[in-house]
Amino acid sequence: MNKYSIILGNLGNTCDRFCKGYKNNPSSEEMLEMAIRKIPHIKGVELVGNWDIRKDNAKEMKKHLADHGLECSSIIPDTFSESDYGKGSITSTDVRIRKKALDYLREMSEIALEIDCKLLNLWLGQDGYDYLLTTDYLGEREWLKEATAALAREYPSLKFALEYKPKEPRNFSYHARMADTILAAKETECNNVGVTIDTGHSFVAGENVSEAVVLAKRAGDMLYHMHFNDNHGSWDDDMIVGTVHSVVYIELLFWLRKTGYKGWLSMDQYPYREDAVDAISESILWVRKFEAIVDEYYNEIESLIKLNDAVETSRFLRKLIR
Amino acid sequence: MNKYSIILGNLGNTCDRFCKGYKNNPSSEEMLEMAIRKIPHIKGVELVGNWDIRKDNAKEMKKHLADHGLECSSIIPDTFSESDYGKGSITSTDVRIRKKALDYLREMSEIALEIDCKLLNLWLGQDGYDYLLTTDYLGEREWLKEATAALAREYPSLKFALEYKPKEPRNFSYHARMADTILAAKETECNNVGVTIDTGHSFVAGENVSEAVVLAKRAGDMLYHMHFNDNHGSWDDDMIVGTVHSVVYIELLFWLRKTGYKGWLSMDQYPYREDAVDAISESILWVRKFEAIVDEYYNEIESLIKLNDAVETSRFLRKLIR
Amino acid sequence: MNKYSIILGNLGNTCDRFCKGYKNNPSSEEMLEMAIRKIPHIKGVELVGNWDIRKDNAKEMKKHLADHGLECSSIIPDTFSESDYGKGSITSTDVRIRKKALDYLREMSEIALEIDCKLLNLWLGQDGYDYLLTTDYLGEREWLKEATAALAREYPSLKFALEYKPKEPRNFSYHARMADTILAAKETECNNVGVTIDTGHSFVAGENVSEAVVLAKRAGDMLYHMHFNDNHGSWDDDMIVGTVHSVVYIELLFWLRKTGYKGWLSMDQYPYREDAVDAISESILWVRKFEAIVDEYYNEIESLIKLNDAVETSRFLRKLIR
Amino acid sequence: MNKYSIILGNLGNTCDRFCKGYKNNPSSEEMLEMAIRKIPHIKGVELVGNWDIRKDNAKEMKKHLADHGLECSSIIPDTFSESDYGKGSITSTDVRIRKKALDYLREMSEIALEIDCKLLNLWLGQDGYDYLLTTDYLGEREWLKEATAALAREYPSLKFALEYKPKEPRNFSYHARMADTILAAKETECNNVGVTIDTGHSFVAGENVSEAVVLAKRAGDMLYHMHFNDNHGSWDDDMIVGTVHSVVYIELLFWLRKTGYKGWLSMDQYPYREDAVDAISESILWVRKFEAIVDEYYNEIESLIKLNDAVETSRFLRKLIR
Repeated sequence: MNKYSIILGNLGNTCDRFCKGYKNNPSSEEMLEMAIRKIPHIKGVELVGNWDIRKDNAKEMKKHLADHGLECSSIIPDTFSESDYGKGSITSTDVRIRKKALDYLREMSEIALEIDCKLLNLWLGQDGYDYLLTTDYLGEREWLKEATAALAREYPSLKFALEYKPKEPRNFSYHARMADTILAAKETECNNVGVTIDTGHSFVAGENVSEAVVLAKRAGDMLYHMHFNDNHGSWDDDMIVGTVHSVVYIELLFWLRKTGYKGWLSMDQYPYREDAVDAISESILWVRKFEAIVDEYYNEIESLIKLNDAVETSRFLRKLIR
Repeated sequence: MNKYSIILGNLGNTCDRFCKGYKNNPSSEEMLEMAIRKIPHIKGVELVGNWDIRKDNAKEMKKHLADHGLECSSIIPDTFSESDYGKGSITSTDVRIRKKALDYLREMSEIALEIDCKLLNLWLGQDGYDYLLTTDYLGEREWLKEATAALAREYPSLKFALEYKPKEPRNFSYHARMADTILAAKETECNNVGVTIDTGHSFVAGENVSEAVVLAKRAGDMLYHMHFNDNHGSWDDDMIVGTVHSVVYIELLFWLRKTGYKGWLSMDQYPYREDAVDAISESILWVRKFEAIVDEYYNEIESLIKLNDAVETSRFLRKLIR
Repeated sequence: MNKYSIILGNLGNTCDRFCKGYKNNPSSEEMLEMAIRKIPHIKGVELVGNWDIRKDNAKEMKKHLADHGLECSSIIPDTFSESDYGKGSITSTDVRIRKKALDYLREMSEIALEIDCKLLNLWLGQDGYDYLLTTDYLGEREWLKEATAALAREYPSLKFALEYKPKEPRNFSYHARMADTILAAKETECNNVGVTIDTGHSFVAGENVSEAVVLAKRAGDMLYHMHFNDNHGSWDDDMIVGTVHSVVYIELLFWLRKTGYKGWLSMDQYPYREDAVDAISESILWVRKFEAIVDEYYNEIESLIKLNDAVETSRFLRKLIR
Repeated sequence: MNKYSIILGNLGNTCDRFCKGYKNNPSSEEMLEMAIRKIPHIKGVELVGNWDIRKDNAKEMKKHLADHGLECSSIIPDTFSESDYGKGSITSTDVRIRKKALDYLREMSEIALEIDCKLLNLWLGQDGYDYLLTTDYLGEREWLKEATAALAREYPSLKFALEYKPKEPRNFSYHARMADTILAAKETECNNVGVTIDTGHSFVAGENVSEAVVLAKRAGDMLYHMHFNDNHGSWDDDMIVGTVHSVVYIELLFWLRKTGYKGWLSMDQYPYREDAVDAISESILWVRKFEAIVDEYYNEIESLIKLNDAVETSRFLRKLIR
């Protein structure tokens, strides 16, 4: 069975550019309590830097997790919520911002070591651009490579998973799709830099997410981490898994198993207007349902992908519905 | 139970702009034989003008259908395959083409009367435009209205269902989405002009197809006809129903029943590389499966749409999967 | 020459769901000073309810505007920033919220009368839905109609312009595209309900915005208001006009003139990381440039749209570039 | 000045899945005459295998081109128009088809050597898949790699440029975007395998095409060839350059120069309903106009991309419009 995890902050307040808060704002401790008591099947928790995990609370958080048999499945450094990083963190044109960002990533890496977290999930949401003819892509990508490589070399026992997303908050992200993120990882020449798939980001990118898994496999087992959610296809709606799509998840779970993925299956939602505990629990139950289907029909699916016959695949899928 | 139908020509050769033929080219008679012998649950067949139904074979076709207990669920006039209509049929800037197109539509209406077909499905695929700043939208939409109204007034016992699609073969179609097609129909001031939903066209249009059903209901029972297929969201891939989406069809079947839709559920696919009989049969079996779910859980769904709670809906959907 | 306007709040702080503030937060008074002193060509200002205009400052704001020869081009009631409206304002399933929203819209209408503002721009951003099978579209659209009609009947001397947008903040908006918004306006049977085009919303909707203008014309001069901005096509990036597209604006300005549009050309941007005064000034200068082209070449464009020849249109466009 | 070229077949008949022919069907010789006599600035011609160039006419074609001072800028093997390749050429699950395809590519390579053509443009349009859960991506990508590598090793003096496109005719292509195509090229471990950008394919892929140029540069000068056309953003409309977009081409021409691109600028359109000679000539004149802007303002653009200020870029762009 796969290892399930959630992102702690997903249990908190949600907002958008129009509304500052759809909900109340629980503390990280309260959210952790909610997760422990109410969310089924989880063995790990992802912590967002600054918000959930800092130098000052690292020891305590480590103990708290251990007390409940949970791992910290990843730390997600926050290079996206401060206005200083508004036009880029490690790719900012301002050398001081780049230095600040890299130092901050080092700090988060130290904390990871301290709390036995093995993976940093780098979602560099502000690293990209908005307008055409305003950006030196060559120079900024060089900064991106250098900082990522520096970090990876300094912390060789940690894994750095680059999470891609085509856009938002920037109009174009540097880590945009699976293949360009593999290229960015390979440029570092460090074998502890890989990729995070967020299923919703992949849908919006126009990829078939299973093919993204295969690209990472062929590039040398570069898939390090998985975030799950669903959307309507054109935007990162961050919805409950299974409420729009289903076939695509069955195929994904099949390819994760077939390619020998050993990482976490972590839920990453943004339940704007829903009860967060319930919404995230639903996603876990959906992924487990898809996993159960793959386990039961693994050989049959293996045959279907060799058979190359849409009608036979349709017949198979139809029998999965009551 | 709903009435199922297919488009006869979907059983024939498929092509695209790169490949002239992926398959053999059976005759309409052969396709009809295939449909009758092999496709489950159908009570109707849609016939494409010129290809399947003409003055010269109308009598014979009528008898053939009757012999097998089939209705002609619609005639689809062919205003899209001749180069004469390449820049528009009833909206061509060439008055002779407009006249030719309208006369042809009259001829097809006569044939409909002759074979007891009650509905013309007008997919005006070439009526639209490609380039900005090349088209008098105001003038062409006036021609569109006049010709549609003329036809509808001359054949008051027939229903004319306008099938919308955002693009292909033109970069922009005049009948593009549900709401603009309702407006186009209302402009005619004829109460025998309505709309056809093709599910795939609706997906590509960015609509939620169930809301399109509701728009037609509110406009005065203007949904006349349904075409079913599936796609990956960005293009009219014309695939087997259920191979990408499923929730959206359950919702659709629910709203068709709730709004009292009495028309056909017709399959409209383009099985480029699949066995056509099998692929279309699959779609029928999928739609019937979704229909069975709606029938079994009608009251529960009715409650869910009042409840407005994504988590409860997710729980409901999850139990439909084995 | 057209009448230019801006939305006052566009000069203030910007944020998104990841970053609470990219900028400082000036007061409405400070923003008004900036607009008056620095933004070229404007004769009007749009005021957002609660933020810029309230009962308590209406008199003062009226005087302030008059002192500088400015009109209030519209009031934009704020039915989107309060969590109370998170699942809908006048279409909330909670009757108290619906009542609160309608009362609030009445209050804003009173203020409009008081300050001689002739138009309320109703962007009902929270009125829509997120998940399939959670919403009674028929019932909610009835509430939408009733509240809009009630308001329009009670304030017959005001115009109510419904601003459409396909999504954000909800996954699906009720006022989503031009044609469905025309239908929603017509349902009210009030001749003081029309539509606002936001160019960026129209791009994202997959419409050709000039055709949207023509649809509104044919429906009976239902285009009441215009918001200008640009984007990359897939999302409401709210950028400076002209930084991505240009041909589409030339066509738009042509059709606005041809259809006799007499309303405002108002800038609606969200300059996340740009100097707001400069960015909005740029948009005005772009729209004026496009307007100047249309004025100079009006007859030539008129001929081109009759000619229906993409090559001739291309030649025309090419000569507009240095 | 850049070297301009066209694809010969673009001057011929056009069709789609609905209409078999919008135009007449000139011979390759007639099309070549038209190109030579009427299309400005071209120094090269791309020839489609089988259609324009075969063993039997290679000698003659070589002489014909030489007589008019033209080079064969590329051969485009036809692995897309035969039904044999309908479910893949070098990635077909049928070993005989894979062998046939590879042998055919060898034959085209021989012809390239014979006529002094230095580049094969491999657009493997049928290599991909349509339905989820029908395809062994791992196995098929292995075949893709092996056949590409075999070809590249056997013809080390030729360059093989992989042309990517997200979809059409398959729902998903293996060579889909710049980055995955770089990965596919690198897998071959042959330094004569690179990438072709088709601007329209890049637009549809959601890439910023200039960033694609930079990705290819960073991967080691892997951009081998350029195809130009325009579209409305959601589909490969294959339109005249400049009729929808302009800023994006200015940026592209800048980055092509900045990264030292030395290949052809070839037009690749599909003028469904336009005069082909005129439509393609327009594209050349547009690209040259953009090139002239880049040449005139190269240093200013260089400064702008360092400046990172959307307002300054907007001011620059605005002055390019009359």
